[in-house]
Amino acid sequence: MFNFRANINILGLLTGISGLAMLLALPFSLYYQSGDFQAILFSGLGIMVVGGLVWFLSRTKGNQELKKRDGYLIVTAGWLVMSFVGAIPYVASGAIPSYTDAFFETMSGFTTTGASILGQTIEDLPAGLHFWRAMTHWIGGMGIIVLTIAILPLLGIGGMQLYAAEVPGPTPDKLTPRVKETAKRLWIIYVALTLAEALLLMLGGMNLFESLCHAMATLSTGGFSTRQASVGAFSPYIQYVITIFMFLAGTNFALTYFALRGKPLRLWNNEEFRFFLYVSLGLIAVVTLGVYVQEDMGLEASFRAAAFQVMSIVTTTGFGTADYTAWGPFLMILFFVLMFSGACAGSTSGGMKLVRFLVLLKNSYLELKRQIHPKAIMPVRFNGKAIPQDVVSKILAFFLIFVSIFVVGSFVMTLMGLDFMTAIGSVAATLGNIGPGIGGVGPGDAQNFAAIPNAGKWFLSFLMLLGRLELFTVLMLLTPFFWLKS
Amino acid sequence: MFNFRANINILGLLTGISGLAMLLALPFSLYYQSGDFQAILFSGLGIMVVGGLVWFLSRTKGNQELKKRDGYLIVTAGWLVMSFVGAIPYVASGAIPSYTDAFFETMSGFTTTGASILGQTIEDLPAGLHFWRAMTHWIGGMGIIVLTIAILPLLGIGGMQLYAAEVPGPTPDKLTPRVKETAKRLWIIYVALTLAEALLLMLGGMNLFESLCHAMATLSTGGFSTRQASVGAFSPYIQYVITIFMFLAGTNFALTYFALRGKPLRLWNNEEFRFFLYVSLGLIAVVTLGVYVQEDMGLEASFRAAAFQVMSIVTTTGFGTADYTAWGPFLMILFFVLMFSGACAGSTSGGMKLVRFLVLLKNSYLELKRQIHPKAIMPVRFNGKAIPQDVVSKILAFFLIFVSIFVVGSFVMTLMGLDFMTAIGSVAATLGNIGPGIGGVGPGDAQNFAAIPNAGKWFLSFLMLLGRLELFTVLMLLTPFFWLKS
Repeated sequence: MFNFRANINILGLLTGISGLAMLLALPFSLYYQSGDFQAILFSGLGIMVVGGLVWFLSRTKGNQELKKRDGYLIVTAGWLVMSFVGAIPYVASGAIPSYTDAFFETMSGFTTTGASILGQTIEDLPAGLHFWRAMTHWIGGMGIIVLTIAILPLLGIGGMQLYAAEVPGPTPDKLTPRVKETAKRLWIIYVALTLAEALLLMLGGMNLFESLCHAMATLSTGGFSTRQASVGAFSPYIQYVITIFMFLAGTNFALTYFALRGKPLRLWNNEEFRFFLYVSLGLIAVVTLGVYVQEDMGLEASFRAAAFQVMSIVTTTGFGTADYTAWGPFLMILFFVLMFSGACAGSTSGGMKLVRFLVLLKNSYLELKRQIHPKAIMPVRFNGKAIPQDVVSKILAFFLIFVSIFVVGSFVMTLMGLDFMTAIGSVAATLGNIGPGIGGVGPGDAQNFAAIPNAGKWFLSFLMLLGRLELFTVLMLLTPFFWLKS
Repeated sequence: MFNFRANINILGLLTGISGLAMLLALPFSLYYQSGDFQAILFSGLGIMVVGGLVWFLSRTKGNQELKKRDGYLIVTAGWLVMSFVGAIPYVASGAIPSYTDAFFETMSGFTTTGASILGQTIEDLPAGLHFWRAMTHWIGGMGIIVLTIAILPLLGIGGMQLYAAEVPGPTPDKLTPRVKETAKRLWIIYVALTLAEALLLMLGGMNLFESLCHAMATLSTGGFSTRQASVGAFSPYIQYVITIFMFLAGTNFALTYFALRGKPLRLWNNEEFRFFLYVSLGLIAVVTLGVYVQEDMGLEASFRAAAFQVMSIVTTTGFGTADYTAWGPFLMILFFVLMFSGACAGSTSGGMKLVRFLVLLKNSYLELKRQIHPKAIMPVRFNGKAIPQDVVSKILAFFLIFVSIFVVGSFVMTLMGLDFMTAIGSVAATLGNIGPGIGGVGPGDAQNFAAIPNAGKWFLSFLMLLGRLELFTVLMLLTPFFWLKS
């Protein structure tokens, strides 16, 4: 039923790629003499060799076909294996002595979450490891692009079919060369945008190393920064550049592809993108007003802080320029609720994705109408097409399960001794792949995930994976029927 | 399109009944010489006369037929009108000088919520008004019984159809005499249980007046008490009696009817009732353990406090014997989440109702299974029957709208200057028809709704109505298409 050999083959390949990618951090380690050269070199080579061997030995000219269940298995296993091996250089260098902490940090990287156990000590992390940390984000983002174009539409998870229509080329029905071609095109956009941001950051006076780190963390909507004060440590120009690129990272990459290929109308005609734009502008206006009234800042500074924070949370990046949890209860609840939203499907952002909210909003209104006219057929329309009611049901179920996991997760965290705010904040921030939450794991100066008990760190790592892989992909593996023949 | 004349006729009748019911408080006012005799007498008579006149003048031998839209209109308008007139004696007597406060207290009564603006001064309220306050609960409970057997199944709101099958006699399709017969039977159960509880409370040494007040507040799952310390002011025996009657009040009255008519298996064969029983027992076990470990109480006292508090919140009664929000973050989140549950459909409890959670739980599990077998048809089964997927969709939409109103409501309350906990606590407690919430409106000694700004009190009153009438009934009236021809 499963093609285990093919699964292992792919896992070997992913492991090898992880090792190879680590080596890209070496130039920065060398240049900054940061003392992590040996740790990264030997970890990278070792992992590359082991992964390469597994890959080589499990090659086959026989059955290469991957079935649906293999798809679920390989996605979850891939993220897990990469996080397990990706944690090694942190421990090997002694920079993060605890493997639990290192695993948490790496899973937070690959899931583009950006939650960190590094607090006040973040600027002591050696340069090479900083670069690797940013790369885990960036690689994770690439993984998400493949996942959303090739695998999720195929699996039909909670409305991701709606997104499939936007993928360049015909809707994929198998992991065929055509999908590889599509992935390559989107990756080019991803790489190009990353380089463009890095260049613009350098024009603002940031050095190459930090520019690359922040650009990788932006395009993947990850949010790891090299600084304790996050993006607050940099100039207004840099904050504006990052704000704009967060918006781009929250946009469906397939639409950006068409826009850059001379079809900007495809972007504009997409309902989710328009919703993203309107919601962003509306929120920025409200938050600017709130900050301007409450905090002792000028209008420009209020607007900049508001725009940055709204984009950071809606796109689930999690960069910070200010402690927005100190902006009074209204803005705190607002940002907390936004942690559940996410930006467009087909972007690297986490959360529930705006397309789902859009469909659910329309369906709720129609549900009232259906009460009055129970016999009339009133399908939800999205991008001008009627959505089958079973897709709407799937999206509703997704919402319910997301909320349920949030609630159950909060219980688990209070059982580990966390207070109410820290418990709900840590769960919302990891499940939604944001990064910093509220309470003890908020964006404030002395706040990070270091103080969470070890069991809690493993649990939150699991939530990051769950959120990143759109819940069903992982939950499936926990059901008996997944492993049984029928 | 609307039969306004018939609507006004019914509203006149309801007003007249409210006035008549007020007069029932007079004996207690007289006996205790509580000084509210005149206020209650003149309010009651005045309201009765006005209501009676409206009813008499709008009588017609012509078209008596009520259509669906009339059903929506009359239910919301009925609760509103009764609350508007029911507030009069509080103001007239000077006991609650502010009409806003009096309206809040009355709406809280008729919606069986039990949220109160009376704090430390609760025991100063004259006896007659205390009795009227408890009666608003009890009349509200009667209203809910009619609503759930006659109107909601007909309107098909968010899964209430599932409940219709349990109503004695054939499924009602019109407000026919048969429905009146059914309502009468259920009311007899309701009255009998109220009297039985009052009797048992008197056997425990409570006086007639307080026994009746507490029995009316229990069976309606309202939760107003005559004491500042709520049920904590009484003996363990009394607390146990009230715990058991809260469970009965949370049980589908139609099932209780069958059980008392010699068909106890109808009760046992009902999935929602079994779920209610298991959930209650499981929660009591967990909370007993939690309280026993954390608080310095004996096992019996822990069990008693746990059982009381679990039944109080799950059935949305809102009585208290202890400040459970001081029992640590785990139990606080647990009780907060339980505020959304409610007990059985067809009981007087508020919240979302267990039947909905049961269906959603089953559907979530099936949704995972459907991912693997997308072509297989796997309906949710409830009480042995397959539920049409559109009913499941309605329940999902209900859940989504409930959560959305909670979130938006919390925003509104923070805008009125409330802190985070008080904002979410006040909204959850009123929307779920509980009574006390968490934060500044929690069950603690100095906590009540008095300090909420006036605009907030009107808004929370609206939420009570919304929650009590299963959302759709009220929301419908806010849509343009409800009032338009098509």
